[in-house]
Amino acid sequence: MAALGDQSDAPPPPDQQTMAAQNKPISNIVIIVAMQTEALPIVNRFQLTEEPNSPFPQGVPWVRYRGTYKDLNISLIWPGKDPVLGVDSVGTISSALVTYAAVQALQPDLIINAGTAGGFKAKGASIGDVFIVSDCAFHDRRIPIPVFDLYGVGLRKAFEAANLVKELNLKVAKLSTGDSLDMSQQDESSIIANDATVKDMEGAAIAYVADLLKVPAIFVKAVTDIIDGDKPTAEEFLQNLAAVTAKLDLAVEQVINFINGKCISEL
Amino acid sequence: MAALGDQSDAPPPPDQQTMAAQNKPISNIVIIVAMQTEALPIVNRFQLTEEPNSPFPQGVPWVRYRGTYKDLNISLIWPGKDPVLGVDSVGTISSALVTYAAVQALQPDLIINAGTAGGFKAKGASIGDVFIVSDCAFHDRRIPIPVFDLYGVGLRKAFEAANLVKELNLKVAKLSTGDSLDMSQQDESSIIANDATVKDMEGAAIAYVADLLKVPAIFVKAVTDIIDGDKPTAEEFLQNLAAVTAKLDLAVEQVINFINGKCISEL
Repeated sequence: MAALGDQSDAPPPPDQQTMAAQNKPISNIVIIVAMQTEALPIVNRFQLTEEPNSPFPQGVPWVRYRGTYKDLNISLIWPGKDPVLGVDSVGTISSALVTYAAVQALQPDLIINAGTAGGFKAKGASIGDVFIVSDCAFHDRRIPIPVFDLYGVGLRKAFEAANLVKELNLKVAKLSTGDSLDMSQQDESSIIANDATVKDMEGAAIAYVADLLKVPAIFVKAVTDIIDGDKPTAEEFLQNLAAVTAKLDLAVEQVINFINGKCISEL
Repeated sequence: MAALGDQSDAPPPPDQQTMAAQNKPISNIVIIVAMQTEALPIVNRFQLTEEPNSPFPQGVPWVRYRGTYKDLNISLIWPGKDPVLGVDSVGTISSALVTYAAVQALQPDLIINAGTAGGFKAKGASIGDVFIVSDCAFHDRRIPIPVFDLYGVGLRKAFEAANLVKELNLKVAKLSTGDSLDMSQQDESSIIANDATVKDMEGAAIAYVADLLKVPAIFVKAVTDIIDGDKPTAEEFLQNLAAVTAKLDLAVEQVINFINGKCISEL
């Protein structure tokens, strides 16, 4: 007869469920990459192939590349080219949508968002630096009503991955996200308030969806342009894009190799 | 024996499929509303009730109210309160996500986005005006690289609904969308370039998803504050919110009554 309080047949409480998930080796990873130029080196490195039967609805340009690497099922999701204009579907809306759709379709254990970013030399960033992100926030959602202001900033912690950062000797930085490649004065004030070293166009949106759906997310950001430097952002970005994506791709390989065989709680 | 070129067994070509859908009476409508204050009068007017079994995944705050009204199945989707902060999940990311998820789950014939907006008196807007939107674009996605610049603006035509506009004697305006309640100088330049009379925080994102998934979308926007006036936007917005949502709610009822029994091609 069961003693009072013995609940061995009951499902474990949520905390224990989460701990169980965190103590199971990671098997499904979704990598989200906004631009084809950033995505293809990673696709090639892990010999991923484009899925002919898309898990996504008809009409969306989203592309899934998939493959197995060591003990991992890897899906790389690229939001694809805009159906009308033919350019990469960059920015927060596309990346939020593909993150949502990929989590629903593929139930990943972990999301990795890999991409290029602008960096602030005043905060120690140089061209080609690769950062693991500790915190994501928005810098272009100003809603000056109490509490809505915090909603607009949308601060989210990335998954900490302390062992990964230590083992791979990676730099850690805060990320600020907005839908513009340039930076207005208002953006700059918000980026400073966000204490950001790197600036991108997707991270905080992916962090928002990952947080809603309770999937741990790691952000790997490589610096293509120095925002507080002398060169125009668009020019510097395009000039360094290919070389820096090669560094990004190497960093993603290091991260994936570290993750292989481990549980979330070991990262 | 079939004559050469007789393809009566084959499915009709896409144009004919679209025409068939457009010539079937509208039965499923999804109304997307960002704020609870805007949503509840519409919920009450059509006696919608909150769906206990959400069609949405666990963890998201999105709420579906549903009901039947005349010949229509109406779902009102409200993105809900932010799980952390308790304020309405306003803005482009939440509205894009709920539009995507609602179309996937509910396969509507038509989307209606109803909400409040800022208006420009220089373009003829007054407090309480209700507009049907002809065009949606973004004003805070500046990507100064050729073609990406157009992607950032993201111009989309709303469903024209010429008969609806004429019959109900509604005003028509262009809408500009951004994630800030305020307006920076850069936003203002883009809003002028977008030729916008009304400014909101969701429309262009909903138009983007509706266009990807090929669902016609109508936008009903009621003016709560005059952007080029003397009063601070946040204060004027909060002051007029309740009175203007009453006007919005009446306009939505007129629109729904007009739609009832009609096909898309008759709107």
